[in-house]
Amino acid sequence: MLVLSSPSGAGKTTLSRRLLAQDGAITMSVSATTRAQRPGETPGTDYDFVSLSDFEARIAKDDFLEHALVFGHRYGTPKGPVAAALGEGRDVLFDIDWQGTQQLRERARDDVVSIFILPPSRAALEQRLHTRAQDSQKTVAARMAKADDEMSHWAEYDYVVINDDLERCLAEIVSILKAERLRRHRQTALSDFVRGLMKG
Amino acid sequence: MLVLSSPSGAGKTTLSRRLLAQDGAITMSVSATTRAQRPGETPGTDYDFVSLSDFEARIAKDDFLEHALVFGHRYGTPKGPVAAALGEGRDVLFDIDWQGTQQLRERARDDVVSIFILPPSRAALEQRLHTRAQDSQKTVAARMAKADDEMSHWAEYDYVVINDDLERCLAEIVSILKAERLRRHRQTALSDFVRGLMKG
Repeated sequence: MLVLSSPSGAGKTTLSRRLLAQDGAITMSVSATTRAQRPGETPGTDYDFVSLSDFEARIAKDDFLEHALVFGHRYGTPKGPVAAALGEGRDVLFDIDWQGTQQLRERARDDVVSIFILPPSRAALEQRLHTRAQDSQKTVAARMAKADDEMSHWAEYDYVVINDDLERCLAEIVSILKAERLRRHRQTALSDFVRGLMKG
Repeated sequence: MLVLSSPSGAGKTTLSRRLLAQDGAITMSVSATTRAQRPGETPGTDYDFVSLSDFEARIAKDDFLEHALVFGHRYGTPKGPVAAALGEGRDVLFDIDWQGTQQLRERARDDVVSIFILPPSRAALEQRLHTRAQDSQKTVAARMAKADDEMSHWAEYDYVVINDDLERCLAEIVSILKAERLRRHRQTALSDFVRGLMKG
């Protein structure tokens, strides 16, 4: 389970899409949310758009690996698809905030690898939020406050990358994923392999 | 501190040389040894060749980060050059066996990243040892026994790579080194950087 967190505007969505496009062994976890669909978003691919009552019923059924409240909207990761992907030996990519990451870490510490993506500067972050046409001035201010809240949790993550260059940052995330797959405890067939080596 | 261990004949020396040639930020730790110099070896580059009395005097002075006995010869890592390289912000590569790795891990657990290199098959390992012209038949048998001893410690390492293809194996080691440099606790300037991001 690979978690990418960042303040909004640090390029996380682009990095996630690029990673998914070039690595066939990792699947995106699609969150459920009570917020309204935005232009350009595809239900079932970007989010599952659900009602608040549906969301609350699923919390009651313990159907979420993690859930969080952001700007008055609920976001949650349904357990089923994650369990299915992991069961097939696939890795799962999570685009969740610090609240969700804390919950995921509590549930499955050894299986979670977390990366925090930082913007190169505050000016770059502000500009990214301003040029998103759909965000009003007031929304930008609220998002900057949320960005500060998110960034205050950077030290809870395993890895930190700085997105000053998209290609370099993507290569760093790819290296982390590649390295973590080589961790001894993740290579479940190694015991048999070494036994074969030693027996001759 | 990056440790590469493997049974003799798994390609560790070639991998180390290639890594050092392409990564300017890592320095090889040169071990002191009491064994005789072999053809093609350069004193001070491959090993520091020292007398047994000199070696024992240095153990008494606690001059070694780790030391081990292999085939009746002593091998040890002098502290001074390692401390100097780390002090300059450089990484240090160690070509040591499981005994030395255990000692290094005890002294500096959080600063040690260890990789175990496995051969693709027992046949490949035997062939590599046989084709080393300087090894007699008896030496090959002793080295195979030492290889089994070394391989029995694979599960003490952070990462395991299989050297079935030199370029792929090198790329894996490079990814591990790159990822470990991105670990939050190794990026010592991050606190100040994030403080700057949040203050604007």
